[in-house]
Amino acid sequence: MKTYTVNFLPDNLSVEVEEATLIAEAAQQAGVFIKNLCGGEGVCGQCRVQVTSGIAEAEEHAKAFFSDEEIEKGYILACQTEIHDDLEITIPPESRMEESQIMTGGATEAYGDSEAMPVVRKLFIELTPPTLEDNIADMERISRELRKQLGWHSFEIHLNCLQHLSDNLRENEWKVTATVVKDRNGYRILKIDPLDTTAHNYGVAIDVGTTTVVAQLVDINSWEVVGVEGTHNMQASYGEDVISRMIYACGKGGLHPLHEAVVKNINQLIEKLAGDNSIPLEEINVIVATGNTTMGHFLLGLTPCSIRLDPYVPTADVYPPILAKDIGIHIHPNGVLETIPNVASYVGGDIVAGVMSCGMADNPEVKGLIDIGTNGEIAIGNNEWLVCCSASAGPAFEGGGTRCGMRATKGAIEKVEITNGEVKYQTIGNAKPRGICGSGLIDCIYELVRNGIIGADGKFHRNRDDARLGVEDNIAHYTIAHAHETESGETIVITESDIDNLIKSKGAVFAAIKSLVDYIGLTFDQIDNFYVAGGFGSYLNISKAVAIGLLPDIPREKIQFIGNSSLTGARMCLLSEAALEKCMNISRSMTNIELSVYQPFMDEYIAALFLPHTDRKLFPSVEY
Amino acid sequence: MKTYTVNFLPDNLSVEVEEATLIAEAAQQAGVFIKNLCGGEGVCGQCRVQVTSGIAEAEEHAKAFFSDEEIEKGYILACQTEIHDDLEITIPPESRMEESQIMTGGATEAYGDSEAMPVVRKLFIELTPPTLEDNIADMERISRELRKQLGWHSFEIHLNCLQHLSDNLRENEWKVTATVVKDRNGYRILKIDPLDTTAHNYGVAIDVGTTTVVAQLVDINSWEVVGVEGTHNMQASYGEDVISRMIYACGKGGLHPLHEAVVKNINQLIEKLAGDNSIPLEEINVIVATGNTTMGHFLLGLTPCSIRLDPYVPTADVYPPILAKDIGIHIHPNGVLETIPNVASYVGGDIVAGVMSCGMADNPEVKGLIDIGTNGEIAIGNNEWLVCCSASAGPAFEGGGTRCGMRATKGAIEKVEITNGEVKYQTIGNAKPRGICGSGLIDCIYELVRNGIIGADGKFHRNRDDARLGVEDNIAHYTIAHAHETESGETIVITESDIDNLIKSKGAVFAAIKSLVDYIGLTFDQIDNFYVAGGFGSYLNISKAVAIGLLPDIPREKIQFIGNSSLTGARMCLLSEAALEKCMNISRSMTNIELSVYQPFMDEYIAALFLPHTDRKLFPSVEY
Repeated sequence: MKTYTVNFLPDNLSVEVEEATLIAEAAQQAGVFIKNLCGGEGVCGQCRVQVTSGIAEAEEHAKAFFSDEEIEKGYILACQTEIHDDLEITIPPESRMEESQIMTGGATEAYGDSEAMPVVRKLFIELTPPTLEDNIADMERISRELRKQLGWHSFEIHLNCLQHLSDNLRENEWKVTATVVKDRNGYRILKIDPLDTTAHNYGVAIDVGTTTVVAQLVDINSWEVVGVEGTHNMQASYGEDVISRMIYACGKGGLHPLHEAVVKNINQLIEKLAGDNSIPLEEINVIVATGNTTMGHFLLGLTPCSIRLDPYVPTADVYPPILAKDIGIHIHPNGVLETIPNVASYVGGDIVAGVMSCGMADNPEVKGLIDIGTNGEIAIGNNEWLVCCSASAGPAFEGGGTRCGMRATKGAIEKVEITNGEVKYQTIGNAKPRGICGSGLIDCIYELVRNGIIGADGKFHRNRDDARLGVEDNIAHYTIAHAHETESGETIVITESDIDNLIKSKGAVFAAIKSLVDYIGLTFDQIDNFYVAGGFGSYLNISKAVAIGLLPDIPREKIQFIGNSSLTGARMCLLSEAALEKCMNISRSMTNIELSVYQPFMDEYIAALFLPHTDRKLFPSVEY
Repeated sequence: MKTYTVNFLPDNLSVEVEEATLIAEAAQQAGVFIKNLCGGEGVCGQCRVQVTSGIAEAEEHAKAFFSDEEIEKGYILACQTEIHDDLEITIPPESRMEESQIMTGGATEAYGDSEAMPVVRKLFIELTPPTLEDNIADMERISRELRKQLGWHSFEIHLNCLQHLSDNLRENEWKVTATVVKDRNGYRILKIDPLDTTAHNYGVAIDVGTTTVVAQLVDINSWEVVGVEGTHNMQASYGEDVISRMIYACGKGGLHPLHEAVVKNINQLIEKLAGDNSIPLEEINVIVATGNTTMGHFLLGLTPCSIRLDPYVPTADVYPPILAKDIGIHIHPNGVLETIPNVASYVGGDIVAGVMSCGMADNPEVKGLIDIGTNGEIAIGNNEWLVCCSASAGPAFEGGGTRCGMRATKGAIEKVEITNGEVKYQTIGNAKPRGICGSGLIDCIYELVRNGIIGADGKFHRNRDDARLGVEDNIAHYTIAHAHETESGETIVITESDIDNLIKSKGAVFAAIKSLVDYIGLTFDQIDNFYVAGGFGSYLNISKAVAIGLLPDIPREKIQFIGNSSLTGARMCLLSEAALEKCMNISRSMTNIELSVYQPFMDEYIAALFLPHTDRKLFPSVEY
């Protein structure tokens, strides 16, 4: 039988399928998630995709879902269209399972351990009914049975669960399901359900980012991500960045509004995920949350005030496991919230989760993790040692602090190429451009310097004959998208001061990497792999990031972009108590180098304020 | 200097003191507790006592507290009267620290370990403030300091305590007091107070009896019992005995009213104790409660329904430690309630506490504990083995099931002597008689059989010429107090059917003791000590109890009446985590012999329905 190749964009994932396979099926095989509310009946219209190369004819009745213009552009329903050609299918953001480009997946999942024991698990137990010869108490009977399944541990139980135990056992003929959580020192029984309910056990992994809060609903039995939702962190109304929110919380505003905001965020995400997937909130038994130290403090309602001030002390690095309801999060009333521990005030649980998720601490190979956000956090190490540091990179890579910068959402220019004065760009969701996100800005800088439009100092060659080059209020700028192309009708430009900010940001990140590598007495080529994480959407051009001096100049195959490694780490902790335990160990054992008191860092920073660097020997492969 | 002997009644405790010692001081030396609200100033009038032998003149001004009749009877204020004679002082119930005759004290306290660590302790910690070189998180700083004081343990913390930690430390210049509770697997921080509050640390020991609930407020630093309060178990309105309350709880009435009743009891007792001693409820951090298995279930709101029915299974033998507030008990919001574990459905935490308190499990000597209530519970063993059993004794020894029976409170006849047809009795509080309590009934039976008024079968010799002997509706009875002597003006009698009931009760207790001793292959003389506990007030005539065949006929000095050993055990658990741990071990290791399926018990029971026994060889020293 004839086969065809189908490539899905923007993920750039390909799959070979037999003739007449439905596009929706091909997507599934390729590991691309398309919305599918009606289960493939062709009645919900949610699986709209665009055929951007090749020929595929939509079923006649499916055309009702599209305007003539859309049909012209190749829009079809993935669940109603068979494959009879090699195709390139672009999945518009609104059809993706993930919310548009908010980073929700990615990262190598380093368990591989099919024996992984989830933090909260369900166990079906069939008890032999008591007799006069064997009339131990109900709770002791449960413990005895659980010990057969889980080994010799102490078992505690919630009072409200114990209060119904007797009836529960007798009404269900001694067949019940126990939901148990691994506590620091043993197991705790969260609930006892009638009969066998082991098929339904859900948890939520949450990444509380400064800008974005993302939640994944996970089926703990199958490890499947049932759904993903992301939203803006509502705390933004109290300050754009972490520092201004801390100032708000420690001033008149107080901690409460910030705590409430993130709890509201999380409740909304969980309600949406549960509703969309018809899963009762009562069946969600556990949440693993991660975030930077300040976000962790806001989440649990801890004062973050001493984090901000010398000597930068958090209230806690290891957070107690709590009942989610104790901070007003609505899952099962005895459901647990674990928050991944920090290393220090500016190296949070997000980094710990990231380090764990990419398996850095698992074997002797030396690896590095670079998480680029408002803070650039770097961790390097192996199974024997781990060091980390954090440098303030500024908001440039997240779309802040530049004139036309924006976060990696729909309409953001994420890819730029300049050839002979021609600018080609690609936007997220193929929408009309609204601004430039971090990965687009990295491309811009690279393309500008490669084409000789700016110098190695980031300044424009103003005397150059280029229609895109302009000067306004003595600030030179370069047009990336003309006014008529953009959504707002305003020109999208990159200015000399934008470039200046970006060079400072990349300089801070690189200086942090370099300082840390020097501190531990290694050279770049002794590091086996660098993982790059951050909010760049699904696209980051590694070569260009190296070429502007953001990332070290080592063989490209040693550098991997892994997306949102914090969320991946949180999900792994849901699925494996060993992963959570590993996070505890990482948090305890990782050494934080305080760059603000590490003298060489400032010199490295100054040296890095150049494209790619003042010391070209550090970037031998860069050719512009 | 001249010395005098002072004997305090009803405790019958003597002390030798120097001339001119105050009676209040002598009482203290003798270990007798007299109320003393004004601190010995002679202005509150609470330390009223009666000089019943010897001469002691009250200070003139103190006479204002008494009527002429009372002065005539020898009433004085203990804090204002010096000793210049050998005295017998009777302490009226209203002047005792304990509520009238409700058993609140007693029992050998077997710790002796001055290093005992209380379950909840306070630790003053002075932290070195953080610096850039030492900027671990606040919680980790606290843990580090606590480890210096408590050794290497894991420390958890309540979220609501963690939420205020940062401010608390910084506002108090890093000098705080941590209140920590020993959990099953480590320590948990309940609260962090500013500066040094270690001087104030209180706990409450509670004995939840079927009839009476007694609470002791204990100063955990000094081990001092600050106050004692007892009250009737309000559950009585849902049934007089355990079985009828279970029937109520498992029928239409439901568990809730019974749970609420005991919680209300406890709150009232604690509020009174705290109020009387000007101790804020917030400074009470821990409660240790004990009771029989059903009372423990009612307290925690656990269904007791399967306890009542074959195969007699409780919901839990080991209760989880809970927050007292979770069942509505008002102490510190993070204050802990520990409930002493059971052995089985009819061998509760009260017995476990009793066994622990009398040190039975501490050394190789074989000892026995006999706790006489509606159930007679027997435990025998040493540091290597422990067996126990329980027999339904009926309510006779608690004053139920007999025509003129009553509990051991004011006006109860607790002591009876019959000589040549003359009856001498003593009532609790020297009040007009209102009825006969358990110890009085034991005396009655003994005196009746010794005087030949009844036979060894408990039947009256009806043809005897005795004005006190009567027959009504063919039931013979004997007058203990004439109508004109009693409070109600009704004659107080003991009837043949009362005696029948009492013989059944004593028979059940003795048969249980005998069965258990036989079961383990010992003879009575191989048992080094028997401790007798129960609600007999402060008086129990051991010799008479042996002579009627209630207790085994071994040398009297081997039998000790120890009062409320459950409460003593609970108090010991407040003061020593090792004592609580010992209770856990006793609950796990004690073997319960189910007498209802132990064939020889019924034979022993039948054989024991005689005074003292059908087999007189078992009671060689009994002479009537």
